Amino acid sequence: MKTFEELESAVRSYSRGWPTVFEKAKGYRLWDTAGKEYIDFFAGAGALNYGHNNADMQQKLIEYIERDGILHSLDMGTTPRKEFLEKFQEIILKPRELDYKIMFPGPTGTNTVESALKIARKVTQRQTVISFTNAFHGMTIGSLSVTGNSFKRKGAGIPLNHSVSMPFDQFMENQETLAYLESYLEESGSGLDLPAAVILETVQGEGGINAARIEWLQKVEEICRRFDILLIVDDVQAGCGRTGTFFSFEPAGIKPDIVCLSKSIGGAGLPMAITLIKPEYDQWEPGEHNGTFRGNNLAFITATEALNYWVTDDFSNHIHERAAELKAAIQSIIENYPELNGEARGRGLMQGIAVNVEGLATKICSEAFERGLIVETSGPKDEVVKFLPPLMIDEEGLSKGLCILEDSIKEVLK
Amino acid sequence: MKTFEELESAVRSYSRGWPTVFEKAKGYRLWDTAGKEYIDFFAGAGALNYGHNNADMQQKLIEYIERDGILHSLDMGTTPRKEFLEKFQEIILKPRELDYKIMFPGPTGTNTVESALKIARKVTQRQTVISFTNAFHGMTIGSLSVTGNSFKRKGAGIPLNHSVSMPFDQFMENQETLAYLESYLEESGSGLDLPAAVILETVQGEGGINAARIEWLQKVEEICRRFDILLIVDDVQAGCGRTGTFFSFEPAGIKPDIVCLSKSIGGAGLPMAITLIKPEYDQWEPGEHNGTFRGNNLAFITATEALNYWVTDDFSNHIHERAAELKAAIQSIIENYPELNGEARGRGLMQGIAVNVEGLATKICSEAFERGLIVETSGPKDEVVKFLPPLMIDEEGLSKGLCILEDSIKEVLK
Amino acid sequence: MKTFEELESAVRSYSRGWPTVFEKAKGYRLWDTAGKEYIDFFAGAGALNYGHNNADMQQKLIEYIERDGILHSLDMGTTPRKEFLEKFQEIILKPRELDYKIMFPGPTGTNTVESALKIARKVTQRQTVISFTNAFHGMTIGSLSVTGNSFKRKGAGIPLNHSVSMPFDQFMENQETLAYLESYLEESGSGLDLPAAVILETVQGEGGINAARIEWLQKVEEICRRFDILLIVDDVQAGCGRTGTFFSFEPAGIKPDIVCLSKSIGGAGLPMAITLIKPEYDQWEPGEHNGTFRGNNLAFITATEALNYWVTDDFSNHIHERAAELKAAIQSIIENYPELNGEARGRGLMQGIAVNVEGLATKICSEAFERGLIVETSGPKDEVVKFLPPLMIDEEGLSKGLCILEDSIKEVLK
Amino acid sequence: MKTFEELESAVRSYSRGWPTVFEKAKGYRLWDTAGKEYIDFFAGAGALNYGHNNADMQQKLIEYIERDGILHSLDMGTTPRKEFLEKFQEIILKPRELDYKIMFPGPTGTNTVESALKIARKVTQRQTVISFTNAFHGMTIGSLSVTGNSFKRKGAGIPLNHSVSMPFDQFMENQETLAYLESYLEESGSGLDLPAAVILETVQGEGGINAARIEWLQKVEEICRRFDILLIVDDVQAGCGRTGTFFSFEPAGIKPDIVCLSKSIGGAGLPMAITLIKPEYDQWEPGEHNGTFRGNNLAFITATEALNYWVTDDFSNHIHERAAELKAAIQSIIENYPELNGEARGRGLMQGIAVNVEGLATKICSEAFERGLIVETSGPKDEVVKFLPPLMIDEEGLSKGLCILEDSIKEVLK
Repeated sequence: MKTFEELESAVRSYSRGWPTVFEKAKGYRLWDTAGKEYIDFFAGAGALNYGHNNADMQQKLIEYIERDGILHSLDMGTTPRKEFLEKFQEIILKPRELDYKIMFPGPTGTNTVESALKIARKVTQRQTVISFTNAFHGMTIGSLSVTGNSFKRKGAGIPLNHSVSMPFDQFMENQETLAYLESYLEESGSGLDLPAAVILETVQGEGGINAARIEWLQKVEEICRRFDILLIVDDVQAGCGRTGTFFSFEPAGIKPDIVCLSKSIGGAGLPMAITLIKPEYDQWEPGEHNGTFRGNNLAFITATEALNYWVTDDFSNHIHERAAELKAAIQSIIENYPELNGEARGRGLMQGIAVNVEGLATKICSEAFERGLIVETSGPKDEVVKFLPPLMIDEEGLSKGLCILEDSIKEVLK
Repeated sequence: MKTFEELESAVRSYSRGWPTVFEKAKGYRLWDTAGKEYIDFFAGAGALNYGHNNADMQQKLIEYIERDGILHSLDMGTTPRKEFLEKFQEIILKPRELDYKIMFPGPTGTNTVESALKIARKVTQRQTVISFTNAFHGMTIGSLSVTGNSFKRKGAGIPLNHSVSMPFDQFMENQETLAYLESYLEESGSGLDLPAAVILETVQGEGGINAARIEWLQKVEEICRRFDILLIVDDVQAGCGRTGTFFSFEPAGIKPDIVCLSKSIGGAGLPMAITLIKPEYDQWEPGEHNGTFRGNNLAFITATEALNYWVTDDFSNHIHERAAELKAAIQSIIENYPELNGEARGRGLMQGIAVNVEGLATKICSEAFERGLIVETSGPKDEVVKFLPPLMIDEEGLSKGLCILEDSIKEVLK
Repeated sequence: MKTFEELESAVRSYSRGWPTVFEKAKGYRLWDTAGKEYIDFFAGAGALNYGHNNADMQQKLIEYIERDGILHSLDMGTTPRKEFLEKFQEIILKPRELDYKIMFPGPTGTNTVESALKIARKVTQRQTVISFTNAFHGMTIGSLSVTGNSFKRKGAGIPLNHSVSMPFDQFMENQETLAYLESYLEESGSGLDLPAAVILETVQGEGGINAARIEWLQKVEEICRRFDILLIVDDVQAGCGRTGTFFSFEPAGIKPDIVCLSKSIGGAGLPMAITLIKPEYDQWEPGEHNGTFRGNNLAFITATEALNYWVTDDFSNHIHERAAELKAAIQSIIENYPELNGEARGRGLMQGIAVNVEGLATKICSEAFERGLIVETSGPKDEVVKFLPPLMIDEEGLSKGLCILEDSIKEVLK
Repeated sequence: MKTFEELESAVRSYSRGWPTVFEKAKGYRLWDTAGKEYIDFFAGAGALNYGHNNADMQQKLIEYIERDGILHSLDMGTTPRKEFLEKFQEIILKPRELDYKIMFPGPTGTNTVESALKIARKVTQRQTVISFTNAFHGMTIGSLSVTGNSFKRKGAGIPLNHSVSMPFDQFMENQETLAYLESYLEESGSGLDLPAAVILETVQGEGGINAARIEWLQKVEEICRRFDILLIVDDVQAGCGRTGTFFSFEPAGIKPDIVCLSKSIGGAGLPMAITLIKPEYDQWEPGEHNGTFRGNNLAFITATEALNYWVTDDFSNHIHERAAELKAAIQSIIENYPELNGEARGRGLMQGIAVNVEGLATKICSEAFERGLIVETSGPKDEVVKFLPPLMIDEEGLSKGLCILEDSIKEVLK
């Protein structure tokens, strides 16, 4: 670890909580240089939904490299880009009756969010964007402006403007938070300038695994339509199957105007992001938004391969089964360990336990790491133990990971 | 091309100017699906300094994939990250007596710029950043605020603040532009709030291949020291050997407080970026800036391999030789084709011809594409034909490309 | 009226609703050039609490002018400034056990608000200020940023930032609006940066005569203390006796950190404003805020004279009596004219009837003008008939005005 | 003075430099409570161009007060408002062939500047405003954003945006500063967003009595026309005859789109301001900008009376004569006291001596006060002794004041 301590910036964080050097990984497992095995309940913060080193993806990568396939292409036409576009249209958009233009905004989550904010502001000629409490959308200034976390916001070093933070679903107990948003929009004296867009995560990952209710999401869409505001769903973490359907908003039956995808869209953890834009809002001039790494062809290859998971309903059913098992396990933990003062959070394979005892969630995750489970906390006070296993995990893997977790809880509560 | 036209967002640009589908690439050459060969004077906008598909890098990638090496790791410790850090320290920083902490800010140029601006503002507790006319630093709101191009700026949809644009070297004829900057800093009534930092490119790539004079760079550093302002060099395009030395600022003997690297740092065109920060300014809290793709291990592998080019002076000498050939060719073109009203620009293998006839540069590049040369324009009015060949190009390749260019000029001038 | 129509800017508004030329005024009455008499339920939008042309004030003004007293003095020492300072300290601050430094920020309401925001931001080194829905604080950019009205905000032509609009008391039915504010302050992920200050009107005049409940004001103060946020009361319209006590916040027993006074502080409608600042926050450098008309000596003279109203409780009692009569009359009107769908608003001599039928309030006020009563609307949709008679009005005057009002309602409802 | 020290805010400034209590004033003279006489070379910072207590104005004020004229009227029609409008049109605008709508934006300089910025941004739908180094336009956030002084700017407590500070005439030696502005406007990559307006003072009062050359002003107008940018002249201090003509820009023959007047427009030092707007740009909605003290009728009366000075050329000639005497005296002082390292500044009766020895200008003004002359410093380092006598001063008064000044210089240089 000396290398990281001495040469790397103080900003590094995961290598502090998990102080080892990882060497290889497969499916839902990792190994460090000492050969120790870890079960992965983290999945690259949601970038490894299909698990580590899927053999088909590896094969495709190697073949492509071997035949001198073009690796870097900005937004030039290449075969992998073409294939991805066609297959995404065929397997994802068409069956869901979604009509979107596909934009490659640069390969990270914050790139897609920034592109979404820009086009929403351009199209509406308005500047304010509504985000929600405990939202996390990225670390560049545009995305940070719609992020709730005060620690991250302070890092900007400048005031973050052109955004208004409204209360997310269940932000306040027993309060219908959207009534609040509606009042602000209805009252011309509210001080809220008519916004360009509303941006939201259906399940807030970094914000504490807060899952909005389906009816809340539907109501947001209805409000957006009523006031002629664009609806942006940031599906960077909750999308790509994480909650059981490809898009996290599918159960709500809503059709956002703009959708942000990154993390697992690349299939194997390679940097990639896309922004989906309703054709009527795709009013970009050529090159108005650009970036050097919009053509990461290795990612296109694995991304295209990953789409195979969505041809039938099997994968979706698999996720729902695992999700049910996880939910049951969480319930049982909360009941068996009342000292946690625990609360179940989330949906699909994006669940967590809010541990309402200061510092305890962090201790549990540290202990779990020692015992061979990679699991992290989230939430404004790091109070939520966050379960984000690869979606392809089998019953055995999930159960094994949960056992380690329970042992860790026992140890910590001792 | 129908796929791109129908499915992709209107924002795509390179696939308009070069309307074909590329299939493979090697060294300084590309081939499209029709088998047509192209010489590359573009090099992924500077991301492919070491050429396409370097065989050693390919070998390393395949081996790593085959042994289930971890692909995605955020800022967890991994073997490739460790090796990159150590080798970068050993081969690049130490011999140049540069003392920097290495930050992985996310894998793109705009990520490193945003991180640089954030830490500069945090450390100084000031908000204004000085950038220069015709600067290009990226497309997310923080980076866009220090970018000069009005078309890109408008894309923001919000006013871009906390920045002041000062005149770059030779922005105005016969004016010592830094005298201007000095006056603004010296006069308390100038309306310029004391800035956190000055950010600059030593050679402006997108802005029109404007190379700052060495003494201008030295003077900027001197001014920064005098007024206690941080100096950030954005070496995303001009760095990694593009001008003949690893860092573009080496000939000036200056030591920036923060350096931004991306594009070719990854070696093979895979997304990667680093921010170099003087230890005394590395005042980040853990996780204060983060991002999902800070651990693109395939890029670490090719980045580490690329550092081998810098063990001896051979590569640097090679670049200087090619640069001299290129300079001579440009001079000859300008002389032989007075209709171009041409002006030589740039240094190293980052040169161009400013063609002072409206629309002509674009026509030349289109014609060159038809004839098998990939070369693009830059500058505020697309008036500069910009030569950015892979640095590893040999005399033959360079000469061949220049022949095509000259033929294209002849054709266009007919 | 042709003069105004032809020569004056289109921005003029009152001379549209009351299309006549006023010639003279005394107490609660005005006369136009045609000799028509009007009862004044408007009092210069609260600037004429002591009525028009108080004889003692007139006497003092004339004597001062006759003896060549200095009229204009910026913040130089003058006799009238000295006398005002001493008498304000003696009659207003001391008996109320209020310890404030007195600042002359320029002679208008927006000047005092801007000075309050500046010192609050300076002292706390924070930038965000919390204001409330339907707040009105002024028309210059700083004050406009904390004003709710969307029509006025748009006039800025730039985005209005560094402020967050929270729900005023009873903004939403059956919702404890301060619970909302507390949640935002307590949750570090709420997206609300810790504010420098909260600014509020205890009774919102322009916003629709919304009177905050006493316990709401107390709770705001408590929240400010808990989170170390400065409390600014903008008493420009509600102060100077308008609600029955000199400061509108006296019944709540709170002690704001900063108080803004203007309008009636000058006594006779002459431009004047003061900012009261707790000594520990009076951290201005000399001249850090200035302005040409901080020394309007004619206003100091009438302001000093006006303080005589506050030596005993008589004036306060008089206001409370009138207020009770007004309340009863409003109640009776609401009951007798159910077509108005009316709702009583306000307290003291700052009351109104919200008429929940679109356009009706404006019609009533127009009709009243025809019949010799000056009364205006307020509220985001001009839905409130707003009663702001001079505080010195007697029972007869009030009753006469209310009769005209009732006649007007009858006429309009016909 | 104890009253001011104990009760008033620390922000007070003039009462520190001139620590006495003024009692009365007439013409160009003031007396303090001790009966000491002072010659006035300050004229209320330019608000008393017609001298103190002009007998005709006093008479008009007294008559109006005695006949119960309405004092406060917002923007209601009143006789004095009507008379001012008509006479201003007749005596000022018409003979100069200027076609402006007259707006009453509130009674202070910063009110008129804020209104000018607002309408310019509204009309052009752009946000940036260009101001100049060492500009002073006011202390509210909008005006402060276009003010150069760093000490005043810091007082804002928030970053001041939407403005760009360009170099004023002769800001840098031997540099044609407008070439600089032109380059920024011409080059699309300059980083300067197309501005709504340029705002300038023809002679910068607070900034150090910097008089722009006539040809510089003409060139600014030409640039504004070429790029379709509105030209705002802030004539608050330099207008109303201060430089010899009613508007300071008359000698340049330019026609600004918007003109800001305050200070001496009220005639007697009573708070008043107007904004003149070309009819095609007077696109305000009724009430879009408002304010309580837009109807200060006492000021209208003295303002109307003051216009009599402009019926013939006599007053203008008188000013030019005094200005010539002042210029000669300044020249002689500079020559006779080389220790001052003095430099003559300004034009009309707005002149000064830049004293290039740190702290010396302040010492001279202090000594002058002791000897019975009111004169202040200006400039970013308080390095300019600034002469702003009432315009009506006679030869004797001017000469007497200059004698005291010379004595003070002698004393200080001892």
